[in-house]
Amino acid sequence: MNMLLLEPEDMTAPNAARVSGRRFDELLRIGVEVGKFCRAGMRGGLTGRAEVLRIEPDAIVLRPDFDTPAPAKSELVLIAALPRPQTLDKVIHAAVTMGVEELWFIHTRKVEKSYWDSSKLHPDHLKREIDLALEQCGDTIAPRLEFRRRFRPFVEDELPVLASGRSAWFGDPAATEPVRTVSGAKLLAVGPEGGFTDFESEMLRRAGLTGVTLGPRILRTEFAVAALLAMLGM
Amino acid sequence: MNMLLLEPEDMTAPNAARVSGRRFDELLRIGVEVGKFCRAGMRGGLTGRAEVLRIEPDAIVLRPDFDTPAPAKSELVLIAALPRPQTLDKVIHAAVTMGVEELWFIHTRKVEKSYWDSSKLHPDHLKREIDLALEQCGDTIAPRLEFRRRFRPFVEDELPVLASGRSAWFGDPAATEPVRTVSGAKLLAVGPEGGFTDFESEMLRRAGLTGVTLGPRILRTEFAVAALLAMLGM
Repeated sequence: MNMLLLEPEDMTAPNAARVSGRRFDELLRIGVEVGKFCRAGMRGGLTGRAEVLRIEPDAIVLRPDFDTPAPAKSELVLIAALPRPQTLDKVIHAAVTMGVEELWFIHTRKVEKSYWDSSKLHPDHLKREIDLALEQCGDTIAPRLEFRRRFRPFVEDELPVLASGRSAWFGDPAATEPVRTVSGAKLLAVGPEGGFTDFESEMLRRAGLTGVTLGPRILRTEFAVAALLAMLGM
Repeated sequence: MNMLLLEPEDMTAPNAARVSGRRFDELLRIGVEVGKFCRAGMRGGLTGRAEVLRIEPDAIVLRPDFDTPAPAKSELVLIAALPRPQTLDKVIHAAVTMGVEELWFIHTRKVEKSYWDSSKLHPDHLKREIDLALEQCGDTIAPRLEFRRRFRPFVEDELPVLASGRSAWFGDPAATEPVRTVSGAKLLAVGPEGGFTDFESEMLRRAGLTGVTLGPRILRTEFAVAALLAMLGM
């Protein structure tokens, strides 16, 4: 945790926040002391620091002092084929810490159907993973998170709207165009481990996306996402 | 495993390789069948495919057919402060799959001394992690891997030689220069979680390195490495 993420309901007085549970444990682990400051931010709002006023048996009381906007988002919509459950957390972490504005997980032909039944898709788990990522990167604003279990209606009805006004790309090992930095609003679609099918690639092109390649090296999904986001201008 | 990495000693005849142990288990897991082909390569050499000739109780016999050079390396030397043990594997994985030529782990002020005693630094463990990464990305050539437990002699005596003739950078949150793609030979130094100290940064500058920043977001070490490698032109 590089930044304590406070919730509006943590505020017990205009100048005091009371933190318990996971964040309490985490603050103890990093060794906070009364009178010292830690980096902090308010969900959806400003960041700055908080002074530790009191350490109780199961909570810490802090005085927030916030004056800095959260780091700017990257104007990027990321669409990813739903990865295997253990990879999902890593992709969410990379995307949130690198500042994507919207994160859509979709079904594709080569996504195993069982992935959709994973407990990692439970809203409580997702919120926790996103919060951990916000605490890592010092952001206070969660990206929009969406799931779509049907590829075709998503690509035909929603994707063209999402891609409109954005430089829109999809990862395509067969493409010859390398990734390059683009300014302004962007959209990136990343396939499953086995890639998009030819049919899916054709539908993505029809929705306005251009294929780009990372070259011949096959990266793990989370590193491919991080590399593509970095190259496009995270 | 996207590519089976064969060793010269696997060859039992000019046209036959016999694979057992971890790679045997892995081939069974991905479901190879007699008469089918899998992607394969020879350590230090060419890549291509191998036909499954025979599946024995504890080994698979294959006929290699190699004609393609391994993917080009990225002309990049990566120097990283030794990360915590669980992160070390991830940094090695990212660096190897993204094609770094040389990977140096060094001590810095904010590296915990205990990290140097981790079993993850055992040569057998390192070889296995590198092999897994080569199998992931389809490469056959391991990068040079070096460890230096003393910062100052490394930076004063070895780093200037390594940096000579390369665009040389170090990650520096205080820098104002953003990372940009550079062509040709490159060198990148990445600090520990707490960053390089001012003194260390000054020594890196004296060795010819320029500070670059990823911006205000603090990424996990493995994602910072992947993003920086991608931005510099992996």
